Amino acid sequence: MKTKANALYEEVAGKMDHLIRHGTYRSGDRIPSIRDISRSMKVSISTALEAYRLLEVKGLIEARPQSGYYVSPPRLKPVTEPKLSRAEIKPAEASLTEIAQVIVRDASNPDFFNLGMAAPSADVLPAKKLNRILASVVRAKETVSVSYLFSDGYEPLRIQIAQRAILAGCPLTPDEIVVTTGCHEAITLSLRALCRPGDAVAIESPFFFNHLQAMAAMGLKIVEIPSSPKEGISLEALGFALEKTRVKACLVSANYSNPTGSCMPDHRKKALVKMLAGKQIPLIEDDIYGDLSFSDKRPRAAKSFDEEGLVVLCSSFSKTLAPGYRVGWVTPGRFHQAIRYQRMINPLAPASPTQMAVAEFLASGGYERHLRRVRRIYEKQLGQMLQALDRHFPEGTRTTRPDGSFIFWVELPASVDSLELFRKAREKGISIAPGPIFSNSGKYRNFLRLNAAHWSPKVERALETLGALSLEQTT
Amino acid sequence: MKTKANALYEEVAGKMDHLIRHGTYRSGDRIPSIRDISRSMKVSISTALEAYRLLEVKGLIEARPQSGYYVSPPRLKPVTEPKLSRAEIKPAEASLTEIAQVIVRDASNPDFFNLGMAAPSADVLPAKKLNRILASVVRAKETVSVSYLFSDGYEPLRIQIAQRAILAGCPLTPDEIVVTTGCHEAITLSLRALCRPGDAVAIESPFFFNHLQAMAAMGLKIVEIPSSPKEGISLEALGFALEKTRVKACLVSANYSNPTGSCMPDHRKKALVKMLAGKQIPLIEDDIYGDLSFSDKRPRAAKSFDEEGLVVLCSSFSKTLAPGYRVGWVTPGRFHQAIRYQRMINPLAPASPTQMAVAEFLASGGYERHLRRVRRIYEKQLGQMLQALDRHFPEGTRTTRPDGSFIFWVELPASVDSLELFRKAREKGISIAPGPIFSNSGKYRNFLRLNAAHWSPKVERALETLGALSLEQTT
Repeated sequence: MKTKANALYEEVAGKMDHLIRHGTYRSGDRIPSIRDISRSMKVSISTALEAYRLLEVKGLIEARPQSGYYVSPPRLKPVTEPKLSRAEIKPAEASLTEIAQVIVRDASNPDFFNLGMAAPSADVLPAKKLNRILASVVRAKETVSVSYLFSDGYEPLRIQIAQRAILAGCPLTPDEIVVTTGCHEAITLSLRALCRPGDAVAIESPFFFNHLQAMAAMGLKIVEIPSSPKEGISLEALGFALEKTRVKACLVSANYSNPTGSCMPDHRKKALVKMLAGKQIPLIEDDIYGDLSFSDKRPRAAKSFDEEGLVVLCSSFSKTLAPGYRVGWVTPGRFHQAIRYQRMINPLAPASPTQMAVAEFLASGGYERHLRRVRRIYEKQLGQMLQALDRHFPEGTRTTRPDGSFIFWVELPASVDSLELFRKAREKGISIAPGPIFSNSGKYRNFLRLNAAHWSPKVERALETLGALSLEQTT
Repeated sequence: MKTKANALYEEVAGKMDHLIRHGTYRSGDRIPSIRDISRSMKVSISTALEAYRLLEVKGLIEARPQSGYYVSPPRLKPVTEPKLSRAEIKPAEASLTEIAQVIVRDASNPDFFNLGMAAPSADVLPAKKLNRILASVVRAKETVSVSYLFSDGYEPLRIQIAQRAILAGCPLTPDEIVVTTGCHEAITLSLRALCRPGDAVAIESPFFFNHLQAMAAMGLKIVEIPSSPKEGISLEALGFALEKTRVKACLVSANYSNPTGSCMPDHRKKALVKMLAGKQIPLIEDDIYGDLSFSDKRPRAAKSFDEEGLVVLCSSFSKTLAPGYRVGWVTPGRFHQAIRYQRMINPLAPASPTQMAVAEFLASGGYERHLRRVRRIYEKQLGQMLQALDRHFPEGTRTTRPDGSFIFWVELPASVDSLELFRKAREKGISIAPGPIFSNSGKYRNFLRLNAAHWSPKVERALETLGALSLEQTT
């Protein structure tokens, strides 16, 4: 029979064993001293010593004179860690929420070939220049770089954003802009500022799944308004919905909507703004893809037709410069106080160094040049992807043909179930975004969103696989 | 009478005039071309030309051959811009919410001498070293630095956080940690994951005003439990409250609570965790000040007594390394899925470069050395501030004497109204945090929180002024 002391040192050893096997301490890492262990695990020095001796005997750690204990290099390699199972999701049982989470998780898993997330290609981002600017701007403004940037965000950045806004038809001043941690935060802060749980929000359908998820989590009711792949949200259907339902706000991507890539003509943007103003309903405009027009000039924002401060324009540099910098912004219009308050009680403030770097990048004049380059690249790749779809996908497949951004929407033959396709594609290591997650009411069963930000022979092969999997479902 | 054309070019000129006067374009900046204006404001080229001619006549802009139009240097300096009025807040009418916002806003206003916000002193932050590491780490890992870091955050950072957690008595593995945009976001994500609007949350009182604000905005009911400046939240009162009220979660700072600086003894932490576990109520632990103990060893986290995954530990590097980096974290325990989901639908992911820099800073071993230095500095400065209070504040003033952090809680004679003191101090350019904002029920009228992160003769003079203003209210 074990004595109590025996059990205790074994317990301590077991805890350290767990930490070493799960990656808290890795081969060659120094582990806590005997004294640290004694203190933090509330055991005597001799128990801690016994525990470490046991770990030494097991070959997990080794003592180095005058230095402490270290994790030993493994003598025999451990068996391969189980990777994220490619078959772990069975859409038949999984909720759309779970699928949305899986897509986001797969995006950072090197085991998956990612056609699902709408991330730009890292190859075309100006990483080297941005990082050089980041390094020099934090050196030049040391105190600012480590300090909170409360209030509305870094002023030189807000000046640059205001100067560019005229290209979208919006004369804005720096104090009409609040910096956020990406565009998605700009949208959620705006929704929180404008709506209470139970309120109804009108959106175009299909629509970006993460916005739908966020709205559902906030307890908002979602009113899906049909939208055309060419002209965006149907004003006729919206007008009808506004008659029937008390809508608290409307959330729309007028330029290159996610997932269809539709871009509203100016006269429809103007009519949308006017219709909502007539009922004093705020419009939250997600313009994250607006800079990625394939023509030289970017389209106007719906905000440019706003005469009453009712349009809350949200955007970011995540699709053009650096998703990882997390620099977005919102023009709160007449809701400045409420949105600023939401920012204060939510993440308090976005990171300072990346705000500073983006401001400097814009001020240096490199942004327009960069845009001209990536617009050409994405336009070309979209063409290549559409041709590949034409070659490999079943008869009857249709797609949108956006004039900007790098995402598009695919309608498969009616018999194809994109959730089934999602599951089968995942088994082959390909991640796609199936249609139903872009709706709150089970629509778009035979649709999917693809990302044309990347192009290579490997992408073509993935599309060939997807096409074959789709074809299986048509017979 | 003006013709219509006249009115139109004047309108365009008026808009540009507004943008120039409000800082979108500043002296020497290039302004949009005639063609840009024509396009974005939907006017003819000749109207745009007329508008610019008018601005030239007014001396606001000038044409430079082959280059475009630029904002002229001002010929006569404009009258001084009105600065943020020091007397704009009348607490008699202002809500506590407004006062909280003013305090945060004042913190980034150089016109105010800030004793109100709990920001660390930029002078003692390792800005130079951190920024050097930031520059080198983004150069070494270019693609990662500009890409989204979905999932739980940058893995090398999570390894470092796991390795340090043992010092707080918590054996953690990297996959038990989720990186957030600061500690405040860790707390709000946890609250959103665990509670629905209308749920009751028990907190210690007094408590950090921004947490109170966030909870109120989420529609949570706040149950204030009295706490002792020495031993923290009263377990007796909490036990009583749990009998009477259905509490969904409990939010506590066991180590150096904000504002009192109280630190719970280990046996009370253990009892707290046990009491809540008995009712299966999750504990959200805000440990943001835990590393700033004045002794060599930091105190244990309440999480260290958690046997059921019910304690959600939140912290960040905002008080020790760099508030502006916005790097925080949460150990979600058994609520991993729910908290990870909240992070996905809220700001999606924190900035990548600052996560990378903090990871590298920790790995380089500089953090403990840095902590030893700042702990000594803050301990000394707290002593100096308490002595200054003793010299300058009215008879009957009492204070807490924390063993860590840099904030403390001041009880003024009963006749002193700290909201009145807040207003008067603000008129003299001094920002303080008045007691009532640390409560949801109007308590602490004669209290205030001060920040000892800074010490200089200027601080002593500010305390002298505060003391004199308090004294006025005692007679």
